[in-house]
Order: sequence, then C-alpha cells, then structure tokens
Amino acid sequence: MTTRNSSLRPLTFAIPKGRILDEALPLMAHAGVVPEAEFYDKKSRALSFAVEGSDMRLIRVRAFDVATFVAHGAAQVGIVGSDVVEEFAYADLYAPVDLDIGHCRLSVAVPVNSGDTASESHLRVASKYPNLTRKHFERQGIQAEVVKLNGAMELAPMLGLSGRIVDLVSTGRTLKENGLVETDVIMQISARLIVNRAALKTDPRVGELVEAFRAMMAEKVAA
Amino acid sequence: MTTRNSSLRPLTFAIPKGRILDEALPLMAHAGVVPEAEFYDKKSRALSFAVEGSDMRLIRVRAFDVATFVAHGAAQVGIVGSDVVEEFAYADLYAPVDLDIGHCRLSVAVPVNSGDTASESHLRVASKYPNLTRKHFERQGIQAEVVKLNGAMELAPMLGLSGRIVDLVSTGRTLKENGLVETDVIMQISARLIVNRAALKTDPRVGELVEAFRAMMAEKVAA
Repeated sequence: MTTRNSSLRPLTFAIPKGRILDEALPLMAHAGVVPEAEFYDKKSRALSFAVEGSDMRLIRVRAFDVATFVAHGAAQVGIVGSDVVEEFAYADLYAPVDLDIGHCRLSVAVPVNSGDTASESHLRVASKYPNLTRKHFERQGIQAEVVKLNGAMELAPMLGLSGRIVDLVSTGRTLKENGLVETDVIMQISARLIVNRAALKTDPRVGELVEAFRAMMAEKVAA
Repeated sequence: MTTRNSSLRPLTFAIPKGRILDEALPLMAHAGVVPEAEFYDKKSRALSFAVEGSDMRLIRVRAFDVATFVAHGAAQVGIVGSDVVEEFAYADLYAPVDLDIGHCRLSVAVPVNSGDTASESHLRVASKYPNLTRKHFERQGIQAEVVKLNGAMELAPMLGLSGRIVDLVSTGRTLKENGLVETDVIMQISARLIVNRAALKTDPRVGELVEAFRAMMAEKVAA
C-alpha cells in the first residue's frame, strides 16, 4: 500500500464492533492497515481513526452499518460477516475475499421437546435476519412471519413470542443454556472483505487493497 | 403488588439496556418491582430474572425489542422511551404513565456551515428512526430517503452518506464534537410505562402495576 493519490478523498475502511474485530486486526496489519494508537483506547469518543503511514481512515460501526456504509459508497472498503452480506444483498456491494475468520453458522432452533415438526404452512420466527429467514422458509414452501429482534433471540420461544428462532450459532452453548436445539443450518458464515463496486472501478487504491488482502490470504493457505 | 394468581403465567416485565435503566430501577423499586441479586451481576448470562416477593420476571433487552415483546404480548409490561413508542406506533401497545426520566429529544442535525437550507423537495437522512424521520419531513412537504443506521449517526454527514441526520440529543455534546448543529426538534422524549392492551384487559396484575406506577408518580409530583 505505497501508492498515494492526494487528489482523492481519504479512503474509508469500515470494520465491525465485536466478535470479528479481534480476528480481523492481525489480517489487516498483514495487508498494511494498522490503526493509530487511539483506536485501542476504549475511552476514546472518536468515530474515525487514522491509519499509520496512509491517508486511509478507519470507522468502527455495527456490522449491519458496515454493509450500509460500503453499499452507499460512504466507505469504500469494509470487513463484515457473510451473514450481513447475504441479508442485505446490496447490488453495489462486492465481497471478493473470504477472510477465513469469524466462523459461525445461521441456524433455525426450536425448544427441546417442542414436538414441532415444521409441517405448518405458516409459522412465526424471531430473528435479526428477516430476509434470510423468509427466504429459507420459502424454499420449503412455508410462509414465515418474522418478528425482528435485535438481540436475545432465545427469549422469544421462552415467552411465547415465536415457536422458532433464526440466529447465529457458534459453539451452541447459548442455545443449550436456553433449552433450544438446532434443527437446520441455513448457511455457514465467515468474514469477508467487501468493497463498493463503483469505488473499485474508479479508485485504484480499492483494487490495491483487494490485492493486498488476496495475497495475504494466499500466503496463509500456502503456509 | 400483593395479589397473586397462580393460575396465570408469570408476568413478564421488559426493561431496556443502557441509558434509561439506571433511572428506572429506583422507580420500579418504589412500585414494588425489585430484581433478584443476579440481575446486577454483569457476568451473568441469564436472560430472565426473578423479582423479589413476586412471580414476575424481568427481561433486559434492547429498547426497540422492549416495544416488540410488549406489543406482541410476550411481555405484558415494559419501560421504554417515547421515541420507541412513537417510532413503532403498535396498535396493541399502550403507554399509560410518563415516568419523567430518560429525558432527551429527537432532532434533525446538519454539518455546521453546511449552507443547507432544507429547501430541497427530496433529501437523504441517516437515522435509527425511519418512520419518525419520514413523517417529520412529510409534514414539511419533503420526501426524505432514510438510510437506516444502528449507531454512530454522526459519521453519515462526515462521509457523505447523507446531508442530515435524525438522532437522539441529550446535552448536544456529541453533535458539537462532530461538527454538527441541531436545526429542528422533532419531539421531546421521556421514558414511559408501557403495557400490552389485551393483557391490561384480561390480567388484573397488569392494571395493578399501572396503578402502582401512577400512584408513585403522583407522590413524586406532590413531594
């Protein structure tokens, strides 16, 4: 990442808070993207951070917002789970590199011993992923009413909000603790490098970043 | 809250994480709703908590989800900001008591010196509140395209995602730090006791809770 083009606006790289971030930072460093020290200061109120030796800036936002910023071209590059890429299915968002981190799956879960045989033609599901949930049940000829929740999905069956949930599953511990059992895996998830399609065509720095991440992943596979 | 009706399911009381919670707990205690000790254990993975001397249970979820659980009758009672009540406008959700806590406002903000005169017939706004945002601009004869963000709204004008944001404002410090200035107040906000309408009609415990909160607020005003 040595090329500079001072006539362009600084490139914005959007990364998600939480789960993926710790695994993403070493990969970013290998690809030449190292945040300034303030990035690690938990008391900082800054929303945007410089990148060492580059005019790039980093923004750290919620995973769904990473996709929104990149799809609209307000950030040109980002890292986000394939769950978010698929949920939004933005035409202007391209996910060229699988980063092989943030592995988990999107699954359907029901209460243990619910006796629920998924044979209904209509059912209610709580999920943070209304689009992926609807599509999954449509493929089975089932019309699902999705109740959108932003967290604590496991409460929905417990309180009678819905018979099923569609949620991210990693170890399965949370499901087990809440008396739920996985019945279907909708998709396997990993984090992706994402770029805005228009920016990739018009700004050579975006293509260079994609190549840096590709090369780094190829090295990892070869090692 | 001495009446028991063991033939009914436990009553579920939904409270929001974050901002409102610290102010809400003393009011809840005055109305007889005191969470078990585990509620205060930050390491607890529990999603639902007992209430001392009652068969009620507490759930602590995100503010938007408080409204969703209560509107669907999965929780019968809750506390949430009037911003959330108005954003969803659920027919089955009734907000009988203003708790006079969690005060802030929902405002439009633009970059300082943006020269933006709000005279356009179409504009783009970033907000967590798409419905309230659209309605606000409709009242002015303006068709607003809302980009839904889940946080860090202030980044949107900075990165060219939108010319305006609609966000919660308390002291105004965050806006100022990010070079933004408030141009319109859409609504003044405070936290409300909310109940599910059907539960209020059929479960006497819900009406009793409403009366306990009403009496407590009347005492506060008289004091």
